[in-house]
Amino acid sequence: MSKLIDYVEVQKHTTKDSCWVILYGNVWDVTNFLPSHPGGAQIILKLAGKDATEEYDPIHPPGTLEENLPESARLGPIDPKSLPRPVKPVQDVGPSADIEAEVEMPLKAMLNLDEIEAAATKKLSRKGWAYYYSAADDLMSKQLNNTVYRQILLRPRVFVNCQDCDLRTTFLGYQLDLPIFVSPAAMARLAHPDGEWGIAQACKKFGAMQMISNNASMTPEQIVKDAGPDQVFGWQLYVQTERKKSEDMLARINKLNAIKFICLTLDAPVPGKREHDERGKFIVEDTSQAIKDAGGAELKGGGGIGQSLFFGTDPTLTWTETLPWLKKHTNKPIILKGLQCHEDAYIAAQHAPQVKGIILSNHGGRAADTAPPSVHTLLEIRKYCPEVFSKIDVVVDGGIKRGTDVVKALALGAKAVGIGRAALFGLGAGGIEGVERVFEILRDETATAARLLGVARLADLGPVHINTRAVERDIYDGPANLPSLEGAMKGLWMRSKL
Amino acid sequence: MSKLIDYVEVQKHTTKDSCWVILYGNVWDVTNFLPSHPGGAQIILKLAGKDATEEYDPIHPPGTLEENLPESARLGPIDPKSLPRPVKPVQDVGPSADIEAEVEMPLKAMLNLDEIEAAATKKLSRKGWAYYYSAADDLMSKQLNNTVYRQILLRPRVFVNCQDCDLRTTFLGYQLDLPIFVSPAAMARLAHPDGEWGIAQACKKFGAMQMISNNASMTPEQIVKDAGPDQVFGWQLYVQTERKKSEDMLARINKLNAIKFICLTLDAPVPGKREHDERGKFIVEDTSQAIKDAGGAELKGGGGIGQSLFFGTDPTLTWTETLPWLKKHTNKPIILKGLQCHEDAYIAAQHAPQVKGIILSNHGGRAADTAPPSVHTLLEIRKYCPEVFSKIDVVVDGGIKRGTDVVKALALGAKAVGIGRAALFGLGAGGIEGVERVFEILRDETATAARLLGVARLADLGPVHINTRAVERDIYDGPANLPSLEGAMKGLWMRSKL
Amino acid sequence: MSKLIDYVEVQKHTTKDSCWVILYGNVWDVTNFLPSHPGGAQIILKLAGKDATEEYDPIHPPGTLEENLPESARLGPIDPKSLPRPVKPVQDVGPSADIEAEVEMPLKAMLNLDEIEAAATKKLSRKGWAYYYSAADDLMSKQLNNTVYRQILLRPRVFVNCQDCDLRTTFLGYQLDLPIFVSPAAMARLAHPDGEWGIAQACKKFGAMQMISNNASMTPEQIVKDAGPDQVFGWQLYVQTERKKSEDMLARINKLNAIKFICLTLDAPVPGKREHDERGKFIVEDTSQAIKDAGGAELKGGGGIGQSLFFGTDPTLTWTETLPWLKKHTNKPIILKGLQCHEDAYIAAQHAPQVKGIILSNHGGRAADTAPPSVHTLLEIRKYCPEVFSKIDVVVDGGIKRGTDVVKALALGAKAVGIGRAALFGLGAGGIEGVERVFEILRDETATAARLLGVARLADLGPVHINTRAVERDIYDGPANLPSLEGAMKGLWMRSKL
Amino acid sequence: MSKLIDYVEVQKHTTKDSCWVILYGNVWDVTNFLPSHPGGAQIILKLAGKDATEEYDPIHPPGTLEENLPESARLGPIDPKSLPRPVKPVQDVGPSADIEAEVEMPLKAMLNLDEIEAAATKKLSRKGWAYYYSAADDLMSKQLNNTVYRQILLRPRVFVNCQDCDLRTTFLGYQLDLPIFVSPAAMARLAHPDGEWGIAQACKKFGAMQMISNNASMTPEQIVKDAGPDQVFGWQLYVQTERKKSEDMLARINKLNAIKFICLTLDAPVPGKREHDERGKFIVEDTSQAIKDAGGAELKGGGGIGQSLFFGTDPTLTWTETLPWLKKHTNKPIILKGLQCHEDAYIAAQHAPQVKGIILSNHGGRAADTAPPSVHTLLEIRKYCPEVFSKIDVVVDGGIKRGTDVVKALALGAKAVGIGRAALFGLGAGGIEGVERVFEILRDETATAARLLGVARLADLGPVHINTRAVERDIYDGPANLPSLEGAMKGLWMRSKL
Repeated sequence: MSKLIDYVEVQKHTTKDSCWVILYGNVWDVTNFLPSHPGGAQIILKLAGKDATEEYDPIHPPGTLEENLPESARLGPIDPKSLPRPVKPVQDVGPSADIEAEVEMPLKAMLNLDEIEAAATKKLSRKGWAYYYSAADDLMSKQLNNTVYRQILLRPRVFVNCQDCDLRTTFLGYQLDLPIFVSPAAMARLAHPDGEWGIAQACKKFGAMQMISNNASMTPEQIVKDAGPDQVFGWQLYVQTERKKSEDMLARINKLNAIKFICLTLDAPVPGKREHDERGKFIVEDTSQAIKDAGGAELKGGGGIGQSLFFGTDPTLTWTETLPWLKKHTNKPIILKGLQCHEDAYIAAQHAPQVKGIILSNHGGRAADTAPPSVHTLLEIRKYCPEVFSKIDVVVDGGIKRGTDVVKALALGAKAVGIGRAALFGLGAGGIEGVERVFEILRDETATAARLLGVARLADLGPVHINTRAVERDIYDGPANLPSLEGAMKGLWMRSKL
Repeated sequence: MSKLIDYVEVQKHTTKDSCWVILYGNVWDVTNFLPSHPGGAQIILKLAGKDATEEYDPIHPPGTLEENLPESARLGPIDPKSLPRPVKPVQDVGPSADIEAEVEMPLKAMLNLDEIEAAATKKLSRKGWAYYYSAADDLMSKQLNNTVYRQILLRPRVFVNCQDCDLRTTFLGYQLDLPIFVSPAAMARLAHPDGEWGIAQACKKFGAMQMISNNASMTPEQIVKDAGPDQVFGWQLYVQTERKKSEDMLARINKLNAIKFICLTLDAPVPGKREHDERGKFIVEDTSQAIKDAGGAELKGGGGIGQSLFFGTDPTLTWTETLPWLKKHTNKPIILKGLQCHEDAYIAAQHAPQVKGIILSNHGGRAADTAPPSVHTLLEIRKYCPEVFSKIDVVVDGGIKRGTDVVKALALGAKAVGIGRAALFGLGAGGIEGVERVFEILRDETATAARLLGVARLADLGPVHINTRAVERDIYDGPANLPSLEGAMKGLWMRSKL
Repeated sequence: MSKLIDYVEVQKHTTKDSCWVILYGNVWDVTNFLPSHPGGAQIILKLAGKDATEEYDPIHPPGTLEENLPESARLGPIDPKSLPRPVKPVQDVGPSADIEAEVEMPLKAMLNLDEIEAAATKKLSRKGWAYYYSAADDLMSKQLNNTVYRQILLRPRVFVNCQDCDLRTTFLGYQLDLPIFVSPAAMARLAHPDGEWGIAQACKKFGAMQMISNNASMTPEQIVKDAGPDQVFGWQLYVQTERKKSEDMLARINKLNAIKFICLTLDAPVPGKREHDERGKFIVEDTSQAIKDAGGAELKGGGGIGQSLFFGTDPTLTWTETLPWLKKHTNKPIILKGLQCHEDAYIAAQHAPQVKGIILSNHGGRAADTAPPSVHTLLEIRKYCPEVFSKIDVVVDGGIKRGTDVVKALALGAKAVGIGRAALFGLGAGGIEGVERVFEILRDETATAARLLGVARLADLGPVHINTRAVERDIYDGPANLPSLEGAMKGLWMRSKL
Repeated sequence: MSKLIDYVEVQKHTTKDSCWVILYGNVWDVTNFLPSHPGGAQIILKLAGKDATEEYDPIHPPGTLEENLPESARLGPIDPKSLPRPVKPVQDVGPSADIEAEVEMPLKAMLNLDEIEAAATKKLSRKGWAYYYSAADDLMSKQLNNTVYRQILLRPRVFVNCQDCDLRTTFLGYQLDLPIFVSPAAMARLAHPDGEWGIAQACKKFGAMQMISNNASMTPEQIVKDAGPDQVFGWQLYVQTERKKSEDMLARINKLNAIKFICLTLDAPVPGKREHDERGKFIVEDTSQAIKDAGGAELKGGGGIGQSLFFGTDPTLTWTETLPWLKKHTNKPIILKGLQCHEDAYIAAQHAPQVKGIILSNHGGRAADTAPPSVHTLLEIRKYCPEVFSKIDVVVDGGIKRGTDVVKALALGAKAVGIGRAALFGLGAGGIEGVERVFEILRDETATAARLLGVARLADLGPVHINTRAVERDIYDGPANLPSLEGAMKGLWMRSKL
């Protein structure tokens, strides 16, 4: 029988260079085993120098030790008399309590986008939170965006090699490492001083595309100044009533090589009614008579940040006048943002190659309430004019919360999906690292979803991988109650109206 | 380097005639800029004479100042020693707390009709609230009215000039500035002493039509006495069993030029069971023996206000007898209120031109519980007998809460939509100004919804602007389980039954 | 100017023989007006001898007084100095608070069946409540019963004379004043000592049919002893394994003329699992060793009241053996209770005239959980074998809570609807008068629903009066996924399987 | 008149050998009646020696005593003066309060699987609970599993002899007493030291099949060591990247006769994201710098137990390579676990007889979130390739909570249904006896459901016994929006893609 080992000796070996643990009365040297432990080295190191039997036993079948460690690693029996008296642990049964709001969680511990938003909500100024959170009227479209993907079911295939998953996609011919981009979202410095430049840094790290808002809180030059060589930016244009202002801005953008295309936003020709944002104004309002008397350009409605930003935006844009004007003032490809029905997608495709791509979007539910989620528009296009997908690049935004959402949009024909609030909340939760955590979560979830579907490259995703029946029965099926028109005829009729 | 400016001096310039602010260490004279500030002059005046940097910085990209103000507006650097010590602000992060019930909100701060109702609920007498709020049985129809519009999705079109939106409509040949009218709703003085006359004043300001309840708490003469020259009123008739009473009343109405038509109400031949209203009786009931003994005309059921009003109403009306009688006693056009199925709409259209219009209505959910919302009836008409729309004017009421609801009803063929409780709650919340606020909210929301749809005139709205599929699958499709009848045949069969 | 009247004098006139009130400063003698006041005499008598202006004013337009009262009724002005000082009333605005549980409400103040159940729940013994309330497993079928009628919409017709509504129906040739009967429900004395006899008294008053449970807590002779001459009873039979017991009972029933038919119950050949009922046992269980040792006939499951009642019931009944046996032992017509699919309804109709009627029932959701509500079975019969309605009388039970539910069942072909728990809860809430209140509520609601539909006789109700589309899409449509079978063929296929 | 009996004497007879009770003033000797009392002997014994009138009266009609007991059992009248004064009982009305969490309920008192889970939740370690409870992402698939069976309605048939129900089924030719088996679920010793061996003991008692997890917390030899002669085990294989490890394990399994087949798991080639499990790690994490520095094999994501178990699993399996390899290394039949679409079921059937059966499973909702519940896959197979059922044995798992769920799955073609968490929670709630209670509940509920359907043998269940319409409209119907393909053609198209 080997000599008893004293507990004092065991307690000296608690590092990755020398790690001992006690198991079933024996002292084991597990230093060499650390790098290959399935649960990671940390789990063992936490128990280093201690009796690990209670933690080890219920999850390892007998024989595991012998299978994984050489007999030489068994240093000998512990001297039971040297062991400390066991301390009765505090109760640790049942569901864990909700994590206390007091403690600030590290970014790594935030497991999903809802937790990122919750963390940011605690840090943002009231005004900033209201501006980001708000959406039109009763938030019906925002809610639809957030729930429509959950109505779509996956159809996993088995016995498919899915060791790795290639997450790359292309947009306007540019290669992107991730099919996730940042939609144009205004006022990033309300979240964090790093602002839109900070978002750009996170995009660089993940090979993700970023569209810069016309109402960014930093200049385009500042935002792209540290861009990587392959980094892809778009610049969002709200055409101003004073066209000269827009033309000057386009001239400035023409000089920035990092910006690869112009994204003309069409889904908000006039501001929606965002009551959370507008309400902010009343809460902080100073109602002293002096100010009441002052007059000035009164805004309709409450006039939160959202309304201010619309000042000067031109609501008279048309296919026939605005596109040629824009073409004249930019040397970059043009995409259109905010299409919400197949008819407009069809018309956009007719304008190829002047128009190179479209973003199906309802402006994050911030423009018209009860506007359709972009999944509806994707399904409409598939039904009435699927040739659109072959003529122009189609991407979507709105409601992306999970990797499963990403693969569903791609399975329906989108080249990529945009996130808006998620990037801003990431910024609010932790600056650049917060945005990186958002990308990391979505990237990992997307890869897992694709691999569980049996898809080795995102490009292989197709409608056969999803069951959209619950959504299909809600999409537009022609004007209400025209009983003599068949589904197919309705589609033709739609087109003849273009 | 310019001379340092003392903070005492800055504090003197806080009016629209001279307004200075400190930004990034410099004092700026922004007086001339006030009228053109996108966010309105007030926002700047609140910060006049102070350091505005903290508020300004996160929402303006660098260069904004230089772009918008001449160099001459920069008066020079502030003397930092003259500045007061910064006071740590109270915590102002995260979602705003719910506004405290204690403080009475100004009407301008109420952003939607739900907030108007909430404000009125706090002010109305218990009896008045119960009468207005109540609906039949389990409030199923009231709830359906309130939710059915949300099942309909909009189909916004892009690249359409929507600088303005023409909100006008017509009814019986009269031009109305707004497609929103006040449905006949009884007992307005329960809400406010201004009563129905007050509602008329608000209608005048907005060019909206008003239908006067047979059970108004003021006389028709009082209500219309301050009518504008183009103001349009209708007068609602509940035919009395003692016809003479009704005939006398019609004769009185014939003399009022402001009243342009008679609205014969058909959806409540007998009172529905409105438990909130009836319950009021038991709560305040004096059960002393003297009264119990008294007897008198006992009312069935609880007998709230609603039941009292029905006393004397004739439930024996018919197409063949009542219409000719009415025609004989009025010199004004006739419309019918309360149609709830396409068969009756079809019959009404057959009676044109005696019948000039119909109101699809389930009496605000106050008559038969589980009666269909008027959107169902609109869709039924579109499906089985769309020619109705070309023969008579069709309007609807019930459940209108948002401008999006208005455009949806109009897109399905309604000429206008009525509000009932909303007008009364507006009156309760703030008298005439409360009703005006209701019109203002709905007008602005309607214009925004139409412009976001790409519609420059409400008259251009059509079924192609909405997706009604979720509602269509619930509308009447012929009698249950007659499998051999096709949809179209069911429609024919329905008509042959008329 | 008339002489001022002193308040002391006014206060003397507060009865139906002399009733004065003060309105707008004048004293009026309203004695003669009391019987014709729309709101009932009581409302005026409550204000007799007082100043009623504040109550009167907001709900009566000017001129109402003059229109309804002769000038002679105006006795003269009140002496203002004689009036008491006004007392500031307690706050009485906004929604009424929930009625306090402390005060026992009078039966008249209970406006619907839910309030009756709530009142009974407070009075019943825990065991009695558990037995009545319980249903199978997760209460899914009970909940479906309670909600399925709300999915059906009414289709009110206008311009129909609906002064009165004839509520009569027939069953097996017997005329019933109400289309509402009491389903066989056991153990009424758990609710109230009046028991099943008490229910019979209420039925007599309303001309309603009653089916007596095989497990009644009183003998059949006791229950029918005070029956009216036209009162209709059925007697429910659970066939016992010891047939002799059932035969003796049938012989006893044969002698009771008030009992017009035998109702053979088929929907519970074995007891369902009613956990609320079974749980009662564990709560009160005495677990002393003596009893544990005792043994005896151990019951499977918890063994609440429901299970005990099933002891001795024969689960081996069949069409070919049981019906002829029963025919031999009774001289009364036979109906079958508990049919839940169109196939069995079809077979039952094939057995006419031995079988004269059927009750579609899922045993109040107490047998198989997720069994279909009887509305499903009605719709199945309409779809696959509507001729059943012409061969036998079809009635339903389960989930009837409102008069609108009654008219919907009748519109689909049922001759009458049964209530089970509602009668027992009525008994619990107030003995005989509680059951009467249940009938009164349902009768009035049914008449109102029918009149609002434009139906003058319940017998005129048909499927054109309702929109069942939301339910139709859930009913059985043939075995799952046999794509080559058309709907009609599925129906034929079903029948060939009988 | 008989002599009065003293209460003291009555109190002596309180056992099954001599049991007296007082009823309506008389003392009865009910000893001989005890075994035949419908409610069981215990209920009487609880009242032995006491006055039972209050309990007896409301649930027994008059005459019951005389009918069931001979006159000789009536011993005579009680001496009223000898009776104790009645004690006013504590209030015992209305719904029972929720059972207090303090008292530990006996297993017999747990009436359903939810109560078993609740009991186990209170006893399990936090880590164990999190591992069992967790599922992928937002638990959508887990929730779908738990609710989809409730959307299916039963179609009970009447007048069918259902005295008994034969619950036996077969799998791969083996006879099983119950159609309920234990799915492969890891780490049973986290719940209870009896672990997987304990589950095996419960299975033996009920004749149920058990599949042993590749990640069991005991060795296969330990688990099967006390197997009964007819007991059926399967062994689950996760193929390891180091194939040698799997081959050694298969060789070991080949020697165990109790293990009848190999279950190759395919539904989790990579781990899903189980946040409840992963979160556990952060809560207990020691973040001391020493450990942070340690490095080691870092796990992506949180790295709960679930992720650790996947270490070494091979995600590269394919039909063409893995099946032949497996065939070479085992002498037992092979079944495949985790198929989630009809295409894969069809391919599996093409591989018969190498593949003898399949388990439709989404891994308890723990792999891909929004993966379809196995009921969807059953319905897909019925629709597109029903011949699968005749070529291989099909079983399902996921979401089984009630006997009605069991009969529904069997009616759609499954040979048996698996339980995973339910067995583990049973183990946690009471060790072997807890698992037995789970089987007992499900067995009794299954028999009751089948008998109420009129099914004497589970083998007679077919799609005609259920109404799946609510689920059918959600299942996959071909790729989204290919309008020119008819349903049938979609099916063909699907197959041609295999």
